Amino acid sequence: MEQKSTNIILFSGDYDKAMAAYIIANGAAAYDHKVTIFHTFWGINALRKQESIEVKKGFLEGMFGKMMPRGAEKLALSNMNMAGMGPKMIKHVMKKHNALTLTQLIEMAQEQEINLVSCTMTMDLLGLQKEELLDGVQYAGVAAYLADAENGAVNLFI
Amino acid sequence: MEQKSTNIILFSGDYDKAMAAYIIANGAAAYDHKVTIFHTFWGINALRKQESIEVKKGFLEGMFGKMMPRGAEKLALSNMNMAGMGPKMIKHVMKKHNALTLTQLIEMAQEQEINLVSCTMTMDLLGLQKEELLDGVQYAGVAAYLADAENGAVNLFI
Amino acid sequence: MEQKSTNIILFSGDYDKAMAAYIIANGAAAYDHKVTIFHTFWGINALRKQESIEVKKGFLEGMFGKMMPRGAEKLALSNMNMAGMGPKMIKHVMKKHNALTLTQLIEMAQEQEINLVSCTMTMDLLGLQKEELLDGVQYAGVAAYLADAENGAVNLFI
Repeated sequence: MEQKSTNIILFSGDYDKAMAAYIIANGAAAYDHKVTIFHTFWGINALRKQESIEVKKGFLEGMFGKMMPRGAEKLALSNMNMAGMGPKMIKHVMKKHNALTLTQLIEMAQEQEINLVSCTMTMDLLGLQKEELLDGVQYAGVAAYLADAENGAVNLFI
Repeated sequence: MEQKSTNIILFSGDYDKAMAAYIIANGAAAYDHKVTIFHTFWGINALRKQESIEVKKGFLEGMFGKMMPRGAEKLALSNMNMAGMGPKMIKHVMKKHNALTLTQLIEMAQEQEINLVSCTMTMDLLGLQKEELLDGVQYAGVAAYLADAENGAVNLFI
Repeated sequence: MEQKSTNIILFSGDYDKAMAAYIIANGAAAYDHKVTIFHTFWGINALRKQESIEVKKGFLEGMFGKMMPRGAEKLALSNMNMAGMGPKMIKHVMKKHNALTLTQLIEMAQEQEINLVSCTMTMDLLGLQKEELLDGVQYAGVAAYLADAENGAVNLFI
């Protein structure tokens, strides 16, 4: 029997939605699916390194780079963000319950050999460069996504 | 021929998105699909009883419980919420057109034997307890969702 | 071999989410899929003609009509909208990179014979009329969506 696959498009740059994506992805990998998370638009922010990386950019691209959150732990909640109080509260609750942070979920995904793909069209558009993203990330476009998804057992847009 | 299945993850706590989820779910049930709505994160708020239920909680969990909307009719719109005017306007329009409210859509889902599942991990995290949710709700985690979805005809994340 | 199909529900009225929907749809059509975008709730705004069309409406429906964005280029971003600065910045960046605007992506979709469907229930609810939408749009309900999606290779809710 062919290996089933789970293909998630992570469009959102919200902390909670990215958590949901990675929890499902890690679950599917444990279920022995071939799993790919295709990060596009704001979803790429989850893959940014936390430190500022020196790269040459145009003015607008530089502004986007500064305005967008740098790395998983800087993402905001989709809901109840309330001047940043929400993410603090939820991280407090997560710590209390020993839940994994988004950073830990991403590390687990890498250990489980989940394909973390960054959308090249978005990177072009927002002026993001490979040096700014986590090591091990793959680069592809919508055609590659479709080639995976058309045989996918579980396809989600998050 | 095997019965087809529709598996919806309801992540959002927005009134309109929950409506969309339940309209698709009720349609799929009428289409003779086996239908499951897996409520996770803010989506669980649609399943809360409207009355305040006395349960023991930690301080933060109590705060979450108070801050989050209690039950289907308390949810906000994803769009045009404008200080609460949006949901009022849309409920007025819905009444005029005899459209079903979210509460009625949930009742219809229960009559059609749609599986309403609440994500146990989220309940743990936000400190929600079974007594606070509607009767007949089932409790499961991401593994149960994947077991259904990997054979699903229609899988959506809302 | 049967032709594969991609079925996208476009619920969101955000510029960037609509772009993502149309980019995937155009990609899938190039991949020789039968493609349908089912526009529901705020997603229908992407199909509105830009000019104001004279139609008779009730008071509330008229208000909705005035409050909702008229046509693809009026949609706001889901993120970083900042008093409208976001869409301007992103359109500037898109122009610089020769990326297609949403309007151009919709035109390409029509040339590729992608089925652009508008949800009749939503039109009823929000008081939108066929004269207000682009030529060539089809009209259907959730049953038609499910008939397509239950055999779909790629089903997404955006």
